[in-house]
Amino acid sequence: MLITDLTTPALLVERDVLDANLATMSAALPGPRLRPHVKAHKTTALARRQAGHGHEGFTCATVRECEVMAAAGLGADLLLANEVLDTRRLGALVADGARVTVAVDSLETIAAATAGGVREVLVDVNVGLPRCGCPPEKAGDLASAARAAGLHVRGVMGYEGHLMLVPDPADRARMTGDAMAILVRAAEDVGGEIISAGGTGTYLDNTWATEIQAGSYALMDTAYGKIGHPFGQALSVLGTVISVSPDHAVVDVGLKSLGMDHGLPTIEGAQVWFCSDEHTTFAPEEPVRVGERLRVLPAHVDPTVALHEQMHLVDGETVLETWPVDMRGW
Amino acid sequence: MLITDLTTPALLVERDVLDANLATMSAALPGPRLRPHVKAHKTTALARRQAGHGHEGFTCATVRECEVMAAAGLGADLLLANEVLDTRRLGALVADGARVTVAVDSLETIAAATAGGVREVLVDVNVGLPRCGCPPEKAGDLASAARAAGLHVRGVMGYEGHLMLVPDPADRARMTGDAMAILVRAAEDVGGEIISAGGTGTYLDNTWATEIQAGSYALMDTAYGKIGHPFGQALSVLGTVISVSPDHAVVDVGLKSLGMDHGLPTIEGAQVWFCSDEHTTFAPEEPVRVGERLRVLPAHVDPTVALHEQMHLVDGETVLETWPVDMRGW
Repeated sequence: MLITDLTTPALLVERDVLDANLATMSAALPGPRLRPHVKAHKTTALARRQAGHGHEGFTCATVRECEVMAAAGLGADLLLANEVLDTRRLGALVADGARVTVAVDSLETIAAATAGGVREVLVDVNVGLPRCGCPPEKAGDLASAARAAGLHVRGVMGYEGHLMLVPDPADRARMTGDAMAILVRAAEDVGGEIISAGGTGTYLDNTWATEIQAGSYALMDTAYGKIGHPFGQALSVLGTVISVSPDHAVVDVGLKSLGMDHGLPTIEGAQVWFCSDEHTTFAPEEPVRVGERLRVLPAHVDPTVALHEQMHLVDGETVLETWPVDMRGW
Repeated sequence: MLITDLTTPALLVERDVLDANLATMSAALPGPRLRPHVKAHKTTALARRQAGHGHEGFTCATVRECEVMAAAGLGADLLLANEVLDTRRLGALVADGARVTVAVDSLETIAAATAGGVREVLVDVNVGLPRCGCPPEKAGDLASAARAAGLHVRGVMGYEGHLMLVPDPADRARMTGDAMAILVRAAEDVGGEIISAGGTGTYLDNTWATEIQAGSYALMDTAYGKIGHPFGQALSVLGTVISVSPDHAVVDVGLKSLGMDHGLPTIEGAQVWFCSDEHTTFAPEEPVRVGERLRVLPAHVDPTVALHEQMHLVDGETVLETWPVDMRGW
């Protein structure tokens, strides 16, 4: 099967780039040093490829991601790196034999973990990103409360998400060190063996975490592409040119097949003007023809993937495999 | 069932607001004067409600939307208001008894319509939005080419999408008149009985089109809400507050449950700071509690709907019906 046989828009993953990305990351962070984040691809077939590189534990962002990973036989050590109030479905996974650890940052989330049948937690600490996570000085008390509620506290997590795209490597390394100093102090108060943090942006800078929660490195996007890491753009959205005007052309890839929060997509050899629901209008440097296929590069991989039912593993023009994006939804 | 029983994030549609929106639009544009655009909700249950208000013809943006509408018994007069190169699936619908008209703006799209078994077309004319549509002076020649290829040319379409959100009513009306003057001239060259154009923004201004392709009016979004039309915000994304910090809180509604191309969502009584994959960080005016449910209003309805498997028709806190968003994908 060739990519010209695909209905467009279609999510393409270049096999050689993907495999190089997985190998590069696994060489830098072997085995348990990496806990790949599945939210970036939402595809168990791809997670299985990551497991083949020696990573047994995975990071999830939603209950659904945990459920589908466990059902796919990849539930040996799942971290739901997010606060959850309704934990019943997670408790059911634990009862079925999956290992599920959930983040807690409040007495309410500790109570929810207990009520739902989750047995293991990490204390989530705010290390500078204004999102979830308890104040660092409260981490020890929360750990005590969790233990008093009968939970096993495996350690801490703290996501320096605000530093992922800091362009200057020296700035990024220094700021990561400052954020992780907060987390390491909290870890001393909390106890346990895990310090879980980091992402694709800081995978080399963050030498304090015992495990890095990187996800984007596998597929990459144009936002991450700007900071100079050794990961290639494996993901694109294949489109068909459906209309050509004297000064612009239109490809059938739009807001409903692209994550737009990081801005417009990129088309090689063209200037992108704007996106509509099912269109991207662009000015090509060289003339394009109606019916021509081209690749559109999304600015942000995670929400792009969430818009597609499947992704196609390709080698240039050849479709090798088609994988369901089976962790979508909640 | 109550909304507190729903897994979050969850798409909510307020029944009373929806029904008022449908009634208001149908009073202004009765029967065939409105060809509701299903891309804004992607839900046949909602389209059936629109049909109940007297509209038999619908506008679609994708082949999948046409297929699912036809399978739901709503295929009496479907306009695919977009250029398509692979028309085989549309031809199969026609063979099965659906009426499908497709937009053409080039010899290639005319050839594709013929090859795929589509029998009826509209000539798509560029009326100022740099997207699809032929130059106005070419419309007559394209109609002749289509007829020579054996197609029935029903008329023209031309979408003044660049004018939908012009805030000043007088400016919007004048600019719509200028755009439609182009389309009316092209219609004289093309022949046929249909002049299809317009949207929620220009539904009253556009008195030249024989039918208006409005979609957003049913559910609405905060972008359209700013121009003062008599349609209420029926759509929201229900979330659960999962974390509360001294100066901000986090709800579990993020980039993967919100269309972000028109910017950040809105939360009543709060200032929204930013969105992550599964989070919106906001500063509430009054304290919120962990576990509290709240409604997040998306800036753009169409891509928001495309991220959800289902929408819940609600009356305040009560869930009345749950509808599959069954026209997603391509």
